[in-house]
Amino acid sequence: MIDQNTICAIATAPGMGAIATIRLSGKEALTIADSVFQSVIKSKKIADQAANTLHFGQIVDHSEIIDDVVLALFRAPRSFTGEDVVEISCHGSVFIQQQILQLLLANGARMAKAGEFTQRAFLNGKMDLSQAEAVADLIASETSAAHKIALKQMKGGISQEIKNLRSKLLTFITLIELELDFSEEDVEFANRDSLLQLTIDISLLISNLLKSFQYGNAIKNGIPVAIIGQANVGKSTLLNLLLKEERAIVSDIAGTTRDSIEDVVVIDGIQFRFIDTAGIRSTNDTVESLGIERTFSKIDQAGIVLVLVDATNLSSEEFFENEKVKSKISSKNSVMIINKIDIAPEANVEKMKQIACELGMDAIAISAKKHINISQLVDLLVKSVHKTGISENDVIITNIRHFEALSNANEAINRVVAGLKEHISGDFLSQDIRECLHYMGEITGEITTDEVLGNIFKNFCIGK
Amino acid sequence: MIDQNTICAIATAPGMGAIATIRLSGKEALTIADSVFQSVIKSKKIADQAANTLHFGQIVDHSEIIDDVVLALFRAPRSFTGEDVVEISCHGSVFIQQQILQLLLANGARMAKAGEFTQRAFLNGKMDLSQAEAVADLIASETSAAHKIALKQMKGGISQEIKNLRSKLLTFITLIELELDFSEEDVEFANRDSLLQLTIDISLLISNLLKSFQYGNAIKNGIPVAIIGQANVGKSTLLNLLLKEERAIVSDIAGTTRDSIEDVVVIDGIQFRFIDTAGIRSTNDTVESLGIERTFSKIDQAGIVLVLVDATNLSSEEFFENEKVKSKISSKNSVMIINKIDIAPEANVEKMKQIACELGMDAIAISAKKHINISQLVDLLVKSVHKTGISENDVIITNIRHFEALSNANEAINRVVAGLKEHISGDFLSQDIRECLHYMGEITGEITTDEVLGNIFKNFCIGK
Repeated sequence: MIDQNTICAIATAPGMGAIATIRLSGKEALTIADSVFQSVIKSKKIADQAANTLHFGQIVDHSEIIDDVVLALFRAPRSFTGEDVVEISCHGSVFIQQQILQLLLANGARMAKAGEFTQRAFLNGKMDLSQAEAVADLIASETSAAHKIALKQMKGGISQEIKNLRSKLLTFITLIELELDFSEEDVEFANRDSLLQLTIDISLLISNLLKSFQYGNAIKNGIPVAIIGQANVGKSTLLNLLLKEERAIVSDIAGTTRDSIEDVVVIDGIQFRFIDTAGIRSTNDTVESLGIERTFSKIDQAGIVLVLVDATNLSSEEFFENEKVKSKISSKNSVMIINKIDIAPEANVEKMKQIACELGMDAIAISAKKHINISQLVDLLVKSVHKTGISENDVIITNIRHFEALSNANEAINRVVAGLKEHISGDFLSQDIRECLHYMGEITGEITTDEVLGNIFKNFCIGK
Repeated sequence: MIDQNTICAIATAPGMGAIATIRLSGKEALTIADSVFQSVIKSKKIADQAANTLHFGQIVDHSEIIDDVVLALFRAPRSFTGEDVVEISCHGSVFIQQQILQLLLANGARMAKAGEFTQRAFLNGKMDLSQAEAVADLIASETSAAHKIALKQMKGGISQEIKNLRSKLLTFITLIELELDFSEEDVEFANRDSLLQLTIDISLLISNLLKSFQYGNAIKNGIPVAIIGQANVGKSTLLNLLLKEERAIVSDIAGTTRDSIEDVVVIDGIQFRFIDTAGIRSTNDTVESLGIERTFSKIDQAGIVLVLVDATNLSSEEFFENEKVKSKISSKNSVMIINKIDIAPEANVEKMKQIACELGMDAIAISAKKHINISQLVDLLVKSVHKTGISENDVIITNIRHFEALSNANEAINRVVAGLKEHISGDFLSQDIRECLHYMGEITGEITTDEVLGNIFKNFCIGK
C-alpha cells in the first residue's frame, strides 16, 4: 500500500523564520541527503552515520552553496514515519527553503502530499488511524482542553476503548460462527444470556462515546454561545468584560486566538464563540416579528444560551410570556443573566430569578458595569459546559468520522440486542455483529480503504 | 560582556506548522531541558548525552504531558551560539509552542531578545560582526542574487577584505608610531613613498567597496525602476508581460515575492521594483507643469529609468526637446523602449533610436502586444544592472552601517594621502590612521560598543 518514493516537504510554518525544517522520508532519504549535503568533516557520508545524530554542513547544488544547515538523521523503524528520515534545518528565508526543496526534488525526492508523512506512519504501523487523526487535531489545537483531548487521542485513548469493545465482539462472533459450523446438531456454544449482557454493555459504551461527541466537538471547535436580550441591556459591556477576564484567567495563551473571529473568549481552556445577535429585540410589539424568528435561529445554533435581562426594566418579563420563546429556551442549555443589579430594586431581581426557576434555567445576578459577580458568571459558563457529566479526562469523541462510524456500529449492535431478545438464528446475528465489527475497525484503521485514507489525510497540512 | 542567563525562543516561523522548533542556549540549557523532558528511555538524562544527538520523549509539566518531542543536543563550543544548545522540535500548534516556552521560562530560562542567539555567537567568537549581520540578510533574502551576496558575507567575504586592509594599515601605524618614540632623532622607519603607495591602494580598495554599495543595496532591496512615458504608450501591457517573463525565467522562486508590493518583477535573480508613474504626461503642453516635476522626482528615486515611447506617435519626440528632461535622463541609467513597432513606420523607429543615441541612452524597439524583442528587453534590463562592472561574485557592501563606516574610513585615509603628499608630521598622520583603523574595526566588530551591538541586533527576528 505504501509507495516506494522518497517524499519531502517544508515541515515548519510557512513564511520567514530564524530557522526552517525540511523533512525527507523514504528508502532513498539518506542517499538523496548525501547527494545535496557536504559535511564539514571531509568525505563524511550521511548513509554511514548512526541513527539519531546531528550533522553540520552545507547544502550544495553542484558547486554552489545554498546554505549552512544542520541535518538530523533518523533510521527506520525508529522515526516518525517508520522509514529513514532526514530533517534539514536551514536558515528560515523563504528563498532558501524553496531552493533546498527544489534541489531535493531534482535529486529524486517527490513532493509529499498533505498528511503523507503521518499516513506513512499509519501504514507502517507506528500508530493507528485515530491516533494519526489526533496528530492533525493536536497541531490545530488552540486551547488547553482541545490540546488535552487531542494528545490523549494521539496516545491511543480512543483506540484502546474501541479495541477493547471490538475484541469482546470478536470473542462473541467466534462462538456464534462456530455454532453455524455445527448447525445440523443445534448446539449453542455461546451462552445467550451472557451474550445479551455483553452486547448491552457494548451498546452502553458506544452510546457513552456517542454522547461525548457533542462535548468533544464543542471543545474542538469552540462552544457557540448566543447572548439574547433587548438592546441596551448590557451585552457589549458584558462581552468586553469577558474578554478581559480571559486575559486574567488564561494569560498564557493570549495571542493564540485567531484574529479573524470576533468575540471568541477562552475561559479555563475552553473556547466560547459568541454568536452575533445584534439587532434582536424582545419588546412585546416584536415578539411575533422577524426579530424573534432570528433569535430562534440563533438559539438553535447555540450550545449555550445566555438570556441577558435588565433588572431595572420589567418589560423583559413579557419576553418570557411567549410560549415559543419559553419552549425554545427550555430546550437549551440556558442561563439567565440579570444585569444592572447595582441600580435595580431587589424585588425585580427576585421576580426574574423566579421566572428563570420556572423555565428551569440557572440564573445569576450581576452588574457588568460595577463588575459584581462576574467571576461567578464565568464559573457558571464553564460549569454549564461540563453539565453533560463528561470531563476532558474521559475518553471523548471529537471527530465526525468517528461519530458516524460509531453511530453505524450502534445501530448494528442494537439490532443484535433486539435479535437476541427475539431469539433469532445465529446466521442473522452473525451478520449484524460483522457489520458492527466493520464500523469499529474503521475508526482505528483495522478496516480501511484508500478512499477513506485519502479523505482523512487530505485535510492535513503538507509537511505533516 | 555575555550575560550568563540561559535564553529561549521559538525559532521557526510564527503560526501553525507541522512542526516547530524552540531553541534554548546557555550554561543551564541541559539542566533546564532535563527538568521538562522525559526520554522514552527511563532515567536517561540529557546532561549525560553525547553532543550532536537526537532524543525522543515528552515535554512534561509536573505530571501533565504537553507534547511528544524530539530534542536535539549541541554542546559548547560546537553550536550556533558557541554555548550548550538544546533545540526542541514539537508539534507545530501555536498552543503547544506557547506552553513549552512558558514551561522553559518557569524552569529558569529567560526569553531571548531579538537577535540574541546570533549576538552570542558573535560574542563567543563564532563569527565576526559583519558575518552576524549577514545571518539576518540571509534570512530576509528573497532572490538568488541577494541570497548569494548574504551567503558570501556570512562566509566572511567582506570581513576578509576589511581585515586585509586593516592589517596593512596596522603595519603602517606601527612604523609611524615607532618614529614618534624616536622623534628627537628625526628618523623615518616608514619609507614615505612606499607608504603613500600603500595608502593610495587602500583608498582605492575602500572606494571600490563604497561603489559596490549602490549595486549591493539594489540587490538587497530591489532595484527601483521608473517607467516614464505618455498615457497609452503601453506601460501596463509591458509590465504584465514582464510579470509573465518572470515566471518563465525564474519559476523556481515564484510565490516568494511579497504580496503587499505591487509590480515587483524578479528577473535572473534580481528584484526590480517598478515605481508607480501613473498620471505622468509628456505632451508639449505639460512639459513645464506639475506632471513633469513629478516625473523628475520619480527619475531621482529610480536606479533605472525606462523611457517608453510610442513609435506610431512622433509627439513623443517633443518630450525630449526639453533641456531639463534631457539632463535628467542623461544623468541616469536610462533605456529607451520604442513600443508598437509592429504597426509603426520604420522611419519613426529610426528617428527615435537617433534621439536615444544623442541622449546617450540604450534603445530597444519592441512590440509589447505582439511580444517582439521582449527577451532582448529583459536581457537589457539585467545588463543595465551589471553596468557598474560589479558582479555578485565580487565583494559587495549591502549594509548601510558598513557603508557609513567605510565612508568615514575613506575620509580619514584620504587625509592620510593628502598629509603624506604635504609631508606633515608623523603624529598627525598617526591620528588619521587610527581613525581609519577604528572605522574599519567597527565593521568586523573588532571595535564595538554595546550601543552599536544593540542597534544591530534589535533588527533581527526573535529566535535568531
